[in-house]
This record gives sequence, C-alpha cells and structure tokens, in this order.
Amino acid sequence: MTTKQPETPYQHLEMRFKRLSALAEAEAVLHWDMSAIMPLGGAEARAEQLAELKAVQHGLMTGPEMPDLIAAATADEDSLAGWQPANFREMKRRWIKATALSEDLVVALSKACSACETKWRTARPEGDFKAVLPLLEEVLNLTRQAGEAKAEKQGLSLYDALLDDYEPDGRAADIDPVFAALEDFLPDFLWEVLDAQDARPAPVMPEGPFPEATQKALGIQLMEALGFDFDHGRLDISLHPFCGGTPDDVRITTRYDETDFTSSLMGVLHETGHALYERGLPKPWRGQPVGEALGMSMHESQSLLVEMQVCRSQNFLNYAAPLMKAAFGGDSPAWEVDNLHRLYTRVEPGFIRVDADEVTYPAHVILRYRLEKALLEGDMTLADLPIAWNEGMQKMLGLTPASDREGCLQDLHWYDGAWGYFPTYTLGAMTAAQLFDAAKKAKPEIEPGIAKGDFQPLFRWLKANVHGKGSLLTAKELLIEATGKPLDPEVFKSHLKTRYLG
Amino acid sequence: MTTKQPETPYQHLEMRFKRLSALAEAEAVLHWDMSAIMPLGGAEARAEQLAELKAVQHGLMTGPEMPDLIAAATADEDSLAGWQPANFREMKRRWIKATALSEDLVVALSKACSACETKWRTARPEGDFKAVLPLLEEVLNLTRQAGEAKAEKQGLSLYDALLDDYEPDGRAADIDPVFAALEDFLPDFLWEVLDAQDARPAPVMPEGPFPEATQKALGIQLMEALGFDFDHGRLDISLHPFCGGTPDDVRITTRYDETDFTSSLMGVLHETGHALYERGLPKPWRGQPVGEALGMSMHESQSLLVEMQVCRSQNFLNYAAPLMKAAFGGDSPAWEVDNLHRLYTRVEPGFIRVDADEVTYPAHVILRYRLEKALLEGDMTLADLPIAWNEGMQKMLGLTPASDREGCLQDLHWYDGAWGYFPTYTLGAMTAAQLFDAAKKAKPEIEPGIAKGDFQPLFRWLKANVHGKGSLLTAKELLIEATGKPLDPEVFKSHLKTRYLG
Repeated sequence: MTTKQPETPYQHLEMRFKRLSALAEAEAVLHWDMSAIMPLGGAEARAEQLAELKAVQHGLMTGPEMPDLIAAATADEDSLAGWQPANFREMKRRWIKATALSEDLVVALSKACSACETKWRTARPEGDFKAVLPLLEEVLNLTRQAGEAKAEKQGLSLYDALLDDYEPDGRAADIDPVFAALEDFLPDFLWEVLDAQDARPAPVMPEGPFPEATQKALGIQLMEALGFDFDHGRLDISLHPFCGGTPDDVRITTRYDETDFTSSLMGVLHETGHALYERGLPKPWRGQPVGEALGMSMHESQSLLVEMQVCRSQNFLNYAAPLMKAAFGGDSPAWEVDNLHRLYTRVEPGFIRVDADEVTYPAHVILRYRLEKALLEGDMTLADLPIAWNEGMQKMLGLTPASDREGCLQDLHWYDGAWGYFPTYTLGAMTAAQLFDAAKKAKPEIEPGIAKGDFQPLFRWLKANVHGKGSLLTAKELLIEATGKPLDPEVFKSHLKTRYLG
Repeated sequence: MTTKQPETPYQHLEMRFKRLSALAEAEAVLHWDMSAIMPLGGAEARAEQLAELKAVQHGLMTGPEMPDLIAAATADEDSLAGWQPANFREMKRRWIKATALSEDLVVALSKACSACETKWRTARPEGDFKAVLPLLEEVLNLTRQAGEAKAEKQGLSLYDALLDDYEPDGRAADIDPVFAALEDFLPDFLWEVLDAQDARPAPVMPEGPFPEATQKALGIQLMEALGFDFDHGRLDISLHPFCGGTPDDVRITTRYDETDFTSSLMGVLHETGHALYERGLPKPWRGQPVGEALGMSMHESQSLLVEMQVCRSQNFLNYAAPLMKAAFGGDSPAWEVDNLHRLYTRVEPGFIRVDADEVTYPAHVILRYRLEKALLEGDMTLADLPIAWNEGMQKMLGLTPASDREGCLQDLHWYDGAWGYFPTYTLGAMTAAQLFDAAKKAKPEIEPGIAKGDFQPLFRWLKANVHGKGSLLTAKELLIEATGKPLDPEVFKSHLKTRYLG
C-alpha cells in the first residue's frame, strides 16, 4: 500500500512488512472470531480463509525481489538509525524462516491445523484421543517438515527452530539447566508447602451463586483499574480463555462459572496482563517487526506478573476484597483478605495445567517440554503419548489421569500446531518474578499503589522497561537491562519461598 | 492453494478464483466485525487490513499471467460444460473491471471509504454534514475515477459501470422507465391509501416493555421456523441492521427497542430473507463466481419477499400472532391478527428510508437515484446535496427534514462508497412481488403453509428457482425462467392495490 514512495531498499522492506502486518492482523481477528464466536458450521470455510491469508503472506515474504532487497539493505546497513537496525534484524529472521518453506507446505500446515483443531473440539470432551490421532499425526508430520527446513536455514536443531518461532533466540540448551534447577527444587518444596498449608486453616469459599452479569461487571471494573481501555478492546466469552486481536483492538475472553467466581476473575486479570502488553507497544513502530511483542516468554511474563505477582498478593486483595464483597454481597468471613489470599494461593496438585497453582505449574510444563521434544525427535510415537503422559504425571505429581480428557487431550496447543511453545509458560513465570522484583526495588511506590488500587507506578515502569521496547532488544538483553541479570531461577524460587513458606 | 493440480487454463482460473473467494470471505468477516462488534479504537488498523485485502485481491486478479489465461480459456471455451460457461463469463466480467483500476486507486478508495464511514458514524447523530463533507468528496472523487475507468473498459456509461458492480447487467436505461411507471402511479395511490386507512380504525400498539431477551428469543424462534440454521450463522446487535458474513457462516444483526418490538422483529425477518438466499446457494459451486448471489436486486428481493410479501401478510400473522402474544403476555386486543396486520401494513410518509412502508419506500429510492446520478455526472456538487435532498423530499413526500440527520446523512451507503446501489432496493421490491406471485401460482400449498408456519413449500420453490441457481443466469434471464416475463411494474402495483385497497 503505497502511502509514501520508498527511496531505499530498506524503506521498500518497511513498506512490505507493513503490508504483511496488516495481513497478519486480519488473520488474528479471524482467529479470535473462530475461537470466540464463529458458529461451528463456518469451520471449513474459515480454514480456507486462514490458509489463503497464510499463502498470501508467504508469497509477499518470499517474493523474487526479496533477496535483492535484503542484500541491498544489508550493504547499506550503516545508514540505518534508531530502531531500524533491530527492525532489519527481525525482518531478516522472518524472511529466512519463510524462505525455508514452500507455499504448499505453509498451506497444508495451516489446513491440517484447522482440521485437527476442529476435531479436537469434539474429541476432547469425549476423551477420545484415537479420534483425533490421525489428524494430529498429520500436524506433527508437517510441523516436523517445516521445522527441519527452518532448522537447516537457520543452523539450528529441529526443536530450537520451532521454539524460535515463539521465542526468538530461545534455545533448548538455555532451557535445560533452568528447568533442571526447578526440577531439583520443586518436589521437596511442594511437600513443604503442602505441610505448611495443612497447618493453617483451610480457606472458606465464598458462597454463590455469582451471576454472570455481576462477575462480568467486576471483571470490567478491575480491568479498567489496571488500565484496560475498552475503546481499544473487548471482553468476551470462550471455552478456552485467551488474549487475541491486534494492538489497537485487543480482545480477551473468559468463561463464567456461576458457582465460583474466583477462577474466571483471575483469568480475566491474567489476560488483561497480556492485553496491556499489546496496548503498550510503541505506536510509532506499529506495523513493523520491531514494534511487536518480544516473544511468548515475555508475553506470558506480563500476564503472570499481573496475575501471579500482583493480583494474588495480599496487597492487591486489600484493594480488591471490598470490591468483591460489594459486588456479590453477604457478610461471610470468606470476604476477609486473609481468607481470599489463602484461597488465591492454595496449592494442590491436579491434572489440569490451566487450573494449576504456580508451585505445581512447572511440572505440567516440563512434562510437555520433554514429551514434545521426544515426539519431534522421533524418540516416541504419538500412539504412545497417552501412556507416556500418564506415566509422567504419576512421576512428577503423583497423579494418574482417569481419561485422556484430563491427560494428553487437555491442551489445544499441539493439535493447533503449536510445537515448541510450552516452555515459554514457565520461562514467563520466572521472568515475571524477576521483573516484578526489579520493579519493586526500583520504584518503592509500586506496592503501596497496588494496595490502594493505583497501578500507575507499576505500569509506568513496565512501559519504560518492557512494553515500550517492542522487539528492540532480544529477550535476554531486555531482561538484563531491566533487572541487571539474565534469567535467574533463584529469583523465582525466592518468590515461591516468601509467598508459600514465608 | 494447490489442492489439486490444474490441467487447463480454465482450471487455473478456477483455482485463482477460489483463492479470491477465500480472501473476499475474509474481508466480509472483517467487515461484519467492524460493523457489529469492533471497538471504535480499532478503526484505523481495520482500515489498513481491509485496504491490504483489497490490494491483494486486486493483485491476484490482475496478475501478469491473467491475460494469457483468459485468452487461452477463451480459445478453449467449447470444452466448458454445465455451469462452467457461466462461471467463465463472471470471471471475465470481474477481470475486466479489475484491470481498469490501478492498485493505488483500489487502496486509496478502500481507505477513503473506511475513513469517511468512521467520520459519518459521529457526524450523523450530530446532523453535521459539513464535518464529513471533505471525506465524502474524496470518496465521490475516487469513486468517479474508478467508475470512469471501468466504464471505458466495459463500454458503459459512468453510472452503469458503477451499477454493474451491484447489479450485473443492470442499466439505467432499464431502470428509468420502471421508476417512471412508479412515479406515475404512486403519488395518487398514496393519497388513496391514506384515505382508505383513515376510514379504518387505527391499529393499537401492543404495550411494552418488551425485554430484549424475549424479543431475541422470539426472533430466533421465527428465524428457525423459516429455516435459519444457527450452526451456520449468528444473530447479533448493530446500530444499522444488516446481513453479513459468508454463505457458510451468515450473520444477521438487529437493534432492540424495549418500548416497541415490531420494528426489530420485522428487521430480523428481513435479514433472514437475505441469509436464507446465501445459505441456499449451491454448495458444489462454492468459491466460484457462478456460486455467488446474483446481484443486489435479487438479494433484496429475497429479504423483501420474506418481509413484505410473507411476514407482513395476514397469513403469516395468523401463525405468528399467538407466538407474539405468548412471548410478551397480556390479553390486549393489540394481539389480534387484524390489528397486527393493520400495524404491519400501516402507511405513513416519513423522513427515514429504513423505517418507510412499502408504498412510500420507492420515493426514497428514486430521490437517491436521481441525486447520485446528478452528483456523479457533475450536474450537482456535494455542497448542494442537503438543499437538493430537502427539496426532493418536499416534492416527493411533502416533508422537509428538520436536520441533515433525517436528511442526507441518514444512510451509510454513499459515505461507504456504495454509489449505484440504491435503485436495487426498489428493483428488489418489485422482483419480490413478481417472484412471490409466480411461486403462489405454481405451488398453491405455499399460502396455507405460511398460515400454519410451514415455510417448506415456499423455500423449496425459491431453492429451485432462485437460491440454487447462484449466478448461472443473469437476473433478467432468471426472472423470465421463474415467472415467465421480465420485470413488470404491474405485478408490484397489483400487489400494492390488493394489500392496501383490496
């Protein structure tokens, strides 16, 4: 879209990436629609639309003039200034990845993912892994083909090439020691936490019913307090809560349970953390790779910083408990801050990742990380997944799912083609702890602010140190600039110790 | 998207048009979203997305290989069979139109329309025509450029070239005599109707409030009775009710007034008529031009057939009155069929086209038709539009709007770039009368079916004669095949006479 005439090869590239961004945004809105509101009968046509959008983006990215443009811009790289070198770095990363794939593969993968996701939506509630297995095999097969092609172009291992899609510069070699440190720490720590928890009074659940409309109103009240702007976003319902849309129209979803408001509310706050990251991305860089969020670890760090670090804290509950009580009424001792805090920091090993507390959550992620690596690398077949899953759950949390519904069918990710994504959850949790720790040290007014519902000090720091930086730095560089050191499991461990044994 | 390898030039074209269809569908969903649920802050980014989708479609349509493909397929035209010749005819029509336009013009027009539409949304409630005038001038200017370029390629007048986008093969020379016949007939007829109406008791409005949820439930009940399938569609709310989405995911909207359910309900039934046409298009032709709806007159004929011919009839109200009464309760005489029929066939000249009854509706359309022709052909400037509008209203219906809000700002169409569209409303009303007349004669079971809520006989006939034919025939050919003659104002006049003076 020629709004101005480009003069240099790099400017040509900026124009092309602006077009690519508009198409990716169109795709994002169609994805949101598919997950939140599309009638099921639209699935087949939607798969065609999404695949075609992928094909068009692939065509623009790998057009015959691209190698010359990239070469010419590289030769002239010294002329780039400000955020342009980082933008050019991200352009090249995407171009190299794209050139590894044929359009046929891109389209086939998009369609296989849509078909598998659609099947999964009925197979999961029925716990019928076999029903979706052939489609999942197709997804894995095509994902492996794509990963191998990208790995070769980028000089990476298969797993790293896939991981790099979600976590630029993320490497299994960096993840392994971090996860090993958690595996060392967590099992014993979990028993200590459970013992300490048993020694305290059990939290009292507030008694419902909690009408959906009231839950929604409270969610909106807290979203707005955190800074969510409904002129640039929406709150809707979906079976699987997520944050979608685009930076100027960011859409979160939740699901309501009228017998228990606590989970939906915290889910809303979690997705609000994602949304505020998108909204805080630098507007002048919009449409360019450098203007996008940094990767999924950093994204998850923003949702978990809001949810786990802020909203499950005693400080936040000091502010929010009276609002909850006012919304739902009654004089139950359940509305006391201490009780709500015990409720919101309850630790309990369970089958379902998305319901897990922050102490057991890493076990879910590490299991999936090991399994997806084994599946990708051919050390295991998909047919063996249910058994391997259940054995892993037994080993890590002492639990065996009664059905694949509570086992290997619970998460959409693999079925939707997101392989190499899972580790970013736990990397995000650790990053969140480290960022919040640094923020509190840098700005002592953050915690008193939270206790009275003033989140400005926190978000000013986040805007300056994370949101406003887009993809200017790598995740590693950003973390060092913001916190003084690379990812350090000790900060996360220290957070857990203070909260659960402190 | 290479799902199969094409062998002939024509098969190549089918593949390309399948891609174009997927992109057009993506655009349609984004348009629906923009009109129904997008937060206002997403407008700028959405305009970029839509413009880019237009640019991509234009690029695919005018690619350098297209002239050779079209020429080769033309040379081999004898080998086409079944619906293929009609499909090829529509392909060529679209290709010729597209080649008339540069990508820059396509993008500029798309963005100008988005910007003007966004401005109109605030200017209209304020009655502030001047605020939107510069943007509207840009839209008109670009529309004229596009129209002149297409006119030259197609050998048409400027107006016909624009009309042809909405009404393939539609020509002003065919419209003029038809509209002249109505202009001859309607003014005197209107006075007769008003006199006859005054001689009857005035209808009693059912007393509300009518809760939104109850209105929605009743709307859904009647939509389902008519055959709307919620696995392939949605009912939502928007300020300006419309039918959008795609044939497999067709989405209608309405707006609710809790003091008066009648208008929303009839609006829902109107849009259901549009939706059932989309749903009834032949599935095996999906993704090809021949599989699409025939044009806006035929589309409007399907909504008006359902609304005006069927749902405002005594027959339908025999079936629906008890359902309305059961939904909203009470024992008022307002729920009597005769009263509801008087209410739903009330004639009253007014300012607003979308609120107009079927007797005064053509006056609104003819006014817009004359004005848009004058504006396009340079016989009038946009600055003079408000005065010309008000003079026209005074002359045609004896009314002068108090503000441009009730005048030339009321309709989105021109502001959104739809020039040459308005006549299709009245052509649609006349087509509806003619089709329903033929259907009733061919299938005597249609009317008794309607009276007891069985719409199968009607929709079987419509499926066979209209919906299932896609764009196989021209509108003129289809009407002759279905009714035995071309568009005949006498049938419409006869319908009006029977209903309002009978």
